[in-house]
Amino acid sequence: MLQKELFTKTEKQSPKGEESKNAILLQRAGYIAKEMAGVYTFLPLGFLVLKKIEQIIREEMLKLGAFEIFMPSLTSESSWEKTKRAEMDVLFHLEGRDKSRLVLNPTHEEVITPLMKKYISSYKDLPISTFQFQNKFRNEPRAKSGILRTREFMMKDLYSFHQNENDLENFYEKVKENYFNIFERVGLKEQTVLTFASGGAFSKYSHEFQTICQAGEDIIHLCEKCGIAINSEIITEQRTCPQCGNSSLEVKKAVEVGNIFKLRTKFSESFALKFRTKEGQDDLVEMGCYGIGLGRLMGVIVEIYADEQGLVWPKEVAPFKAHLLCLGGDQERVMADKLYKELLAKNQEVLYDARDVSSGEKFADADLIGLPLRVILSEKTLSQDNVEIKERLSEKGELVKIKDLPKVLEEF
Amino acid sequence: MLQKELFTKTEKQSPKGEESKNAILLQRAGYIAKEMAGVYTFLPLGFLVLKKIEQIIREEMLKLGAFEIFMPSLTSESSWEKTKRAEMDVLFHLEGRDKSRLVLNPTHEEVITPLMKKYISSYKDLPISTFQFQNKFRNEPRAKSGILRTREFMMKDLYSFHQNENDLENFYEKVKENYFNIFERVGLKEQTVLTFASGGAFSKYSHEFQTICQAGEDIIHLCEKCGIAINSEIITEQRTCPQCGNSSLEVKKAVEVGNIFKLRTKFSESFALKFRTKEGQDDLVEMGCYGIGLGRLMGVIVEIYADEQGLVWPKEVAPFKAHLLCLGGDQERVMADKLYKELLAKNQEVLYDARDVSSGEKFADADLIGLPLRVILSEKTLSQDNVEIKERLSEKGELVKIKDLPKVLEEF
Repeated sequence: MLQKELFTKTEKQSPKGEESKNAILLQRAGYIAKEMAGVYTFLPLGFLVLKKIEQIIREEMLKLGAFEIFMPSLTSESSWEKTKRAEMDVLFHLEGRDKSRLVLNPTHEEVITPLMKKYISSYKDLPISTFQFQNKFRNEPRAKSGILRTREFMMKDLYSFHQNENDLENFYEKVKENYFNIFERVGLKEQTVLTFASGGAFSKYSHEFQTICQAGEDIIHLCEKCGIAINSEIITEQRTCPQCGNSSLEVKKAVEVGNIFKLRTKFSESFALKFRTKEGQDDLVEMGCYGIGLGRLMGVIVEIYADEQGLVWPKEVAPFKAHLLCLGGDQERVMADKLYKELLAKNQEVLYDARDVSSGEKFADADLIGLPLRVILSEKTLSQDNVEIKERLSEKGELVKIKDLPKVLEEF
Repeated sequence: MLQKELFTKTEKQSPKGEESKNAILLQRAGYIAKEMAGVYTFLPLGFLVLKKIEQIIREEMLKLGAFEIFMPSLTSESSWEKTKRAEMDVLFHLEGRDKSRLVLNPTHEEVITPLMKKYISSYKDLPISTFQFQNKFRNEPRAKSGILRTREFMMKDLYSFHQNENDLENFYEKVKENYFNIFERVGLKEQTVLTFASGGAFSKYSHEFQTICQAGEDIIHLCEKCGIAINSEIITEQRTCPQCGNSSLEVKKAVEVGNIFKLRTKFSESFALKFRTKEGQDDLVEMGCYGIGLGRLMGVIVEIYADEQGLVWPKEVAPFKAHLLCLGGDQERVMADKLYKELLAKNQEVLYDARDVSSGEKFADADLIGLPLRVILSEKTLSQDNVEIKERLSEKGELVKIKDLPKVLEEF
């Protein structure tokens, strides 16, 4: 993409009223724009990051054999009364012109459970798993962490349906692995720990995936022996690891980037979602739910990797792999244009800065936008048929022959 | 995809309380499920159709040089007051816990116009065009046409920003062509006519793309001479074609599948979206908006093509290209399994019915689901190393050598 065609512009000043690093940098670099507290637009660069994250998650969901669907944001309040959640204070309520009382969904158990009554009648119909990417809405009283906690956010939610606890347990374990694949691919594996959290009234524990991060609102107690953590919500007075009994736990701030939950029969009971067993009995369906917030994941990546100069994107989620900077005059421009076209023809994702601004401004913008690889073509490099390539966090660049660049990028 | 793995099931009975053909057939075939009046879930097959339509539209938008973004569903009511649209009766209003008054967007002028103030200051910044796919919300009093008119619907909206009317006009004409490409690709070109509609207070006309269809709620007056139409809303007493003056117009029912609109400076005025001209003057930005509802497009395709047996999908939007039916016993099953795997390996989109049900049920389901090509492998065809292929609307099938099928599908 030609940088001059991009309608967004970088800003030197931090936006007013933002405290969090992710909100400040993502706005300065033109990835997002604030509509109001806790509500953001994803601009072209931010949209590309969101889509990369979405595609990684989708691929991992399909590996589980789950089917993608798309559920609505509007539900009837009566469904929320059935599950006794109509009074939750994060719900947005609204009224239809036909006087119907509606809810804007913050999660979709109240949609998927009654829906499945149509398709589940026998043990032969199970297991089923199905997921979606859909905007969720939470009536947050204070939204102040940029895209880490918003009133409207894109989320992947997966729901699974089983004959018995054992089958649920097996699937749940698969999702756990699958989630670590996702966090690895987006560049957060190292910082993300499986964390025991409250299971509500119906399970001993749920599991959160907590990414250790200074910007986190959660406190976790990390067991370095087995690499898991306990959410401070459920830490007992003894403060011991529930897995190995270790009592020297480290306290860390963290952001919840995923949550998996054995719902068991809580929702199938509310909606009488039953199936006929092999033995001819009627039994309640066992359910699990598994969520990941896409915007939050993006925000955490910023919080963890960004430095004073700007954003730093891991390769797999960067909007473009490389930032090609043309410095110098007409001669450099001709060569850079040619190189850019060649890279495009080879399907390389490149942002090309051939704007008529100073080199200093180009460098500053490249650091702020934070693509993994900066490629400079200048009078000096061109005189030896070179470009200089530099990874975003490296101190020093290295010279590469112009003709070798397509291959270098391909293998990067 | 293996049909037995698909969790949805076809239904012989029409769903209760539905009148429209699209809602009845799409539910019977397992493409959508009703959450409540005017609110539907897209199930795996329906989701695939929606994604195909989305991808076609996206490709055409990118050809215009437009950038994809993602704007929120929530806006502040105050933005709607600025444009004097806060009282529109299709708006859903809601309240935040911080007492903020919010609106669920049915369209995004109130978001995109103030957003662009940040990025447009000079004539050098123009033109800009940007689009999104986002759920829209309309507080419809009566939703009764299935997915043709819903309270929540996925829509592509494109907005363009220009220095002057002439530049807007040029872009507008490009979008017009582009829209016909889209309708051609989804299989609706023949039935869709450019229709003059009300331009509101600020333009002489807007243009709708109306698809002639019995289920339509709009009435258009078709000029067969020049192939355009006039919406009955604006038809004058003379009833003449505004383009050629022809007065023998044909009255038709139609569904509005797209709308393009020169907004001119209506919204830039409300938000003071100005730019500095080459001559150093401040001037209001000229705007255009261009919409297509994805669910409505899908519904119209059903209304136009479906027959008594079920759905009929044009090739480019079908969830799968072919429906492979295995009839017979173990021997046929072994060969059909092999064939299915071969087709998958060649990236052919196939739904494979190897279920343990009668041939009659398989035929009925194939007709109901409506994939473009039905492929039968039976004892009779196998005995001569054949499969029988039949297009959904053909009376008769034809025999093709099993080994030739992958090539036949590829070229279909």
